Amino acid sequence: MSASSTTSSTIAFSTLGKRAQPPTIARLMAMALETPGVLSLAAGFTDNATLPVDFVRDATEVMLGEPKDREFLQYGTNQGRPRLRQLLAERLAKAEPALDPVELQRGLFVTNGSQQALYLAMQVLCEPGDIVLVDRPSYFVFLEMLSGLGVRAVSLPIDVKGRLDGGALGKLLDGFAARGETARLKASYFVSYFSNPSGRSLDDSEKSTVAVACSAHGMILPVIEDGAYRELYYRQPHAERSVLTLPAWRDFPKFYTSTLTKPFATGLKVGYGFCTDEAWLQKMLHVKGHHDFGTANFSQAILEHALASGGYDAQLARVRPAYERKMRALHQTLVAEGLPSLGWKWAEPAGGLYLWLEAPSAINTGMTGAFCRACLEAGVLYVPGDLCFGDAAPNNFARLSFGVLAEAQLVEAGRRFAAVAKKFA
Amino acid sequence: MSASSTTSSTIAFSTLGKRAQPPTIARLMAMALETPGVLSLAAGFTDNATLPVDFVRDATEVMLGEPKDREFLQYGTNQGRPRLRQLLAERLAKAEPALDPVELQRGLFVTNGSQQALYLAMQVLCEPGDIVLVDRPSYFVFLEMLSGLGVRAVSLPIDVKGRLDGGALGKLLDGFAARGETARLKASYFVSYFSNPSGRSLDDSEKSTVAVACSAHGMILPVIEDGAYRELYYRQPHAERSVLTLPAWRDFPKFYTSTLTKPFATGLKVGYGFCTDEAWLQKMLHVKGHHDFGTANFSQAILEHALASGGYDAQLARVRPAYERKMRALHQTLVAEGLPSLGWKWAEPAGGLYLWLEAPSAINTGMTGAFCRACLEAGVLYVPGDLCFGDAAPNNFARLSFGVLAEAQLVEAGRRFAAVAKKFA
Repeated sequence: MSASSTTSSTIAFSTLGKRAQPPTIARLMAMALETPGVLSLAAGFTDNATLPVDFVRDATEVMLGEPKDREFLQYGTNQGRPRLRQLLAERLAKAEPALDPVELQRGLFVTNGSQQALYLAMQVLCEPGDIVLVDRPSYFVFLEMLSGLGVRAVSLPIDVKGRLDGGALGKLLDGFAARGETARLKASYFVSYFSNPSGRSLDDSEKSTVAVACSAHGMILPVIEDGAYRELYYRQPHAERSVLTLPAWRDFPKFYTSTLTKPFATGLKVGYGFCTDEAWLQKMLHVKGHHDFGTANFSQAILEHALASGGYDAQLARVRPAYERKMRALHQTLVAEGLPSLGWKWAEPAGGLYLWLEAPSAINTGMTGAFCRACLEAGVLYVPGDLCFGDAAPNNFARLSFGVLAEAQLVEAGRRFAAVAKKFA
Repeated sequence: MSASSTTSSTIAFSTLGKRAQPPTIARLMAMALETPGVLSLAAGFTDNATLPVDFVRDATEVMLGEPKDREFLQYGTNQGRPRLRQLLAERLAKAEPALDPVELQRGLFVTNGSQQALYLAMQVLCEPGDIVLVDRPSYFVFLEMLSGLGVRAVSLPIDVKGRLDGGALGKLLDGFAARGETARLKASYFVSYFSNPSGRSLDDSEKSTVAVACSAHGMILPVIEDGAYRELYYRQPHAERSVLTLPAWRDFPKFYTSTLTKPFATGLKVGYGFCTDEAWLQKMLHVKGHHDFGTANFSQAILEHALASGGYDAQLARVRPAYERKMRALHQTLVAEGLPSLGWKWAEPAGGLYLWLEAPSAINTGMTGAFCRACLEAGVLYVPGDLCFGDAAPNNFARLSFGVLAEAQLVEAGRRFAAVAKKFA
């Protein structure tokens, strides 16, 4: 036995340490690895064929070719590169003309993907036992993060059309008040553009209805709007405003998060957040200082260059139709294979990376169920929909990602999925 | 007032959020910015002139030049690139031949600088109110991180020569037992090679003395050894072993952390940790999954390439004499200006980025003291030494970094510092 042999410890972990669970995505990846030839519609990875080798090369050649100033290889600042933050502020102000770019730059910071921004927001707002209101369905990695922090996710009520329902939210808030739990409510969270997992976008009125219901209960809760897929539209942007400029949200502390690299090159992992509340912003920055004291300067500099040169937009112009084609390849296969006539329902998204399928209620799509096993045996994997709910999870949904597979693979994966669906019809 | 105007919130922050304080480094940076022409011996930045533009360009040209496989622009895994982890494992096994590279690779993960590795270790081990034993002096950013997590730092006792003192540690542990605080002790931590701030390296016997004292008290505490500066020696490595192979530490859960980019290019920010305890490792990985699900793949790929091609070692061969020259420029200036005869004491380090000065006991080097103000007025800044102690901080130390300034600037900064010291003699 070598000196470094792993010990089986009796370490007294912290409550956070005790709560730590393997992420679902790791279980799904393990399932895929154990199944040779499986086509994964589960992974949230992005398209390989269109990765912007050219624009990243342009950036690094310019940066490294005339190294008068090598500062991009040196430590940066905790908040992020000023010029990158300026470019991001100008970009956000273009989407939301009521916003002031100078103010945006001041409240904006760069993170290790938008995930770190979400983690920081939750760390400084929530104690174990606190409650966060989440969209229904919601981003399952965020839900796992909440679980890791000991925070309870409660779904924002939706109506029969799947739209946020302010009236029902009012009753939910009444319930919290009646149980003396109001003080435990710490924030609301939603993915509002081409959502993960639903592909849906929220409109002004349904976003506002949440603010109106909270205001009516005197609950000016911090709100986190996740705009990760906002720029990943296929034909045109979703025209509705963010909470940053919607009047109903005016008095709420707001944190808008997004990513630069999801639609560009996920390997660079640069996200950002803009916070309207100075105290909240500073606390997140202080904790980021403890995490890492700033996101890798070199990755930031590449993105800064790509934004300034137009390479970033050129790349988005390239990937948008590519993702639409991929979406259609999967969507049309499922239609052609007759899933709708078997009672499966879904909407064709106008952006993003996901089809969100509702199975007939008799089918259990859960990870340990017969349907999921049959899919694996047929060589196709998906994200069980029950993972995407804060509470009261139905077990007949499935998230199918068309991000990483090529079109021909998507057709094959769709056929495999449909073949299993037919067996279970 | 625009729609995004920052609000002055009444957010109910978490206790972690409430504890969050501006990092000292930010205060020092602000002090520097407010003083035009100041030469900063405070910043822990690295040498600009030797930044490896060539080796990073080699790496990116190869990676981006033949983009058959663009995977380095795609998401990586949470634990880090397997080949990078293999190269790191082989490297560590070369320094510590008793270690098995295969086992090392399994227990090793890649982080956003070594700082994230330290943060993850503390998150999964410590509750607010817990205690961590730290070297004396210790790395002040680690101490601030502990403070942010509500964890109390208690210094490992040292003898008159500044060496770790097992006998005194035994008495300290007796004291914890007598006060019923033993269960709150969660880990020990030290920077053991060319330390920040002291420049000292620990030898086998003093490292072992900590393990022996803990063992004698039945306290098999997790240990974190910070090897951030291990490769930043000037002439030869510090030959002593890490806790990973010292017999006295055999039964302890061990976490060895270091950085690839401190001696290479800090703008890439890639660190790593190797953990001997499977449960501890998994918990840190799970929480890392919540932080960011993996460090930026592209930065990792650059380091992987630099390690494999020999560029990494070539860069280290370049910076080692450069840092020695810089150290000497500052050291010799302080000697020539007569600081020793004024009662200032320090040791000439054999590696690292810092001179650790002990002032005559009458001089208070604290941030708000007259000496620090006089230095700022004279155009030179340092890190007040009292920030570098877990407890019972003396106020007559100063950390002088020679990392970022050029040699001529170091001479000038040393003269300015000495001029102030003469005034206070």
